[in-house]
Amino acid sequence: MLEQELALVKIVVVEPAGALNVGAIARVMKNFGLSQLILVNPQCDRTSEAARHMAVHAGDVLAKANEVATLPEALQGCTRIIATTARDRQWDLLEPARTVLPWLIEAPKQQSALVFGPESRGLSNEELNYAQRFARIPSSPNYAALNLAQAVAICCYELAQAVDLPPSDRSSKTNNYAAFEELEGYYQHLEAVLLKIGYLYPHTAASRMEKFRHIYNRAYLDKQELGAIRGILTQIEWALRAAETRE
Amino acid sequence: MLEQELALVKIVVVEPAGALNVGAIARVMKNFGLSQLILVNPQCDRTSEAARHMAVHAGDVLAKANEVATLPEALQGCTRIIATTARDRQWDLLEPARTVLPWLIEAPKQQSALVFGPESRGLSNEELNYAQRFARIPSSPNYAALNLAQAVAICCYELAQAVDLPPSDRSSKTNNYAAFEELEGYYQHLEAVLLKIGYLYPHTAASRMEKFRHIYNRAYLDKQELGAIRGILTQIEWALRAAETRE
Repeated sequence: MLEQELALVKIVVVEPAGALNVGAIARVMKNFGLSQLILVNPQCDRTSEAARHMAVHAGDVLAKANEVATLPEALQGCTRIIATTARDRQWDLLEPARTVLPWLIEAPKQQSALVFGPESRGLSNEELNYAQRFARIPSSPNYAALNLAQAVAICCYELAQAVDLPPSDRSSKTNNYAAFEELEGYYQHLEAVLLKIGYLYPHTAASRMEKFRHIYNRAYLDKQELGAIRGILTQIEWALRAAETRE
Repeated sequence: MLEQELALVKIVVVEPAGALNVGAIARVMKNFGLSQLILVNPQCDRTSEAARHMAVHAGDVLAKANEVATLPEALQGCTRIIATTARDRQWDLLEPARTVLPWLIEAPKQQSALVFGPESRGLSNEELNYAQRFARIPSSPNYAALNLAQAVAICCYELAQAVDLPPSDRSSKTNNYAAFEELEGYYQHLEAVLLKIGYLYPHTAASRMEKFRHIYNRAYLDKQELGAIRGILTQIEWALRAAETRE
């Protein structure tokens, strides 16, 4: 039974502008058994009359929502992160919500996050880059953009539907996945080493690093694997120092 | 192809009280390729500012919505009718939305209807009796009642999912995946470099390399990505040679 896993999914909303939307999100989360709402730099008041009116009997979800300043803060401790986007991204595989969302609740006892962008612009490239997988809700080319709260509703519904499904066998992999901050530490270390060996140049580092993020995010590393590939970086640094001191 | 069938599904809302809900319903209908909205004895103004504000780019759906006095009028010409309800009905089989909704679009060139009740009370027994089948959206016992527009959103989404969607743009990711022999070349190169920098020892190389294979196989690299990570290896070799010849 995966119902406990549902309670471990954070709904992260970046810079929501509409209090009505935030209230509606709280309601539909409770409708489908979710309870952790994180607002990143909200542009509206979740304690307002409008938000509470839309939340109806989900005032508890609204009241205990967390507000944080940045997306990385919201993602602390999460081992599986899916970002939602309507954009057509060349560089990565957008997966239908139905296919990809169950992945969030397959790893037992792990915090995971489902990230939504602001009403006006959706998630930026930088924000998308924190995620390992990307969900889209298939919609009509005549009017593709869903209302934010509707998009959250459909995703929460899909997650709840997935709970009723038998656990898939890919959940059998270790539940010892690398957490967000551990991966970030690796990317910073990788960038430093690549700059040092002259693979990266300061002015192109950001766009190049984005590609490596995509690769390693997709690989979905566990802590041991992350340790192994990070060990390579340490060893490169050691070998360079050894070569330099040798004459 | 069932997409035309989607356009033949009427969304019938009995006595909606909220203009915001009606606007949101129009928007999400258009998001999922539906266009026929029928309001039965509406208790709000679909031409109001609030409704149009929520409809955003679905003002056309809102403008051409039909208003009728009774539910039987709304159902004229429909051969398949599903009513939505959250009630636990002894006398009939409530089917999950996912299971029952595709039935609406299975009969070619037939008008069909999906009926929703008012925000406050849902559909009455009498109203339910016009339908042939009954859909429910499985939700949490802690808070089962969905917002009306959210319920419509999930049902429209399910209908659109049931339609044989055209090949989506998610196939747009390159089909330029790295071939087996290219990956093998990378693994051999990686092993050579890791031996050289002292990360691997000859007697443990095989089992360690197996772990790296798992990581990169999972990442499912395209040719360009493989080129990028293989470039790192070349650069490490270059940096080591440069360090060795430096004094």
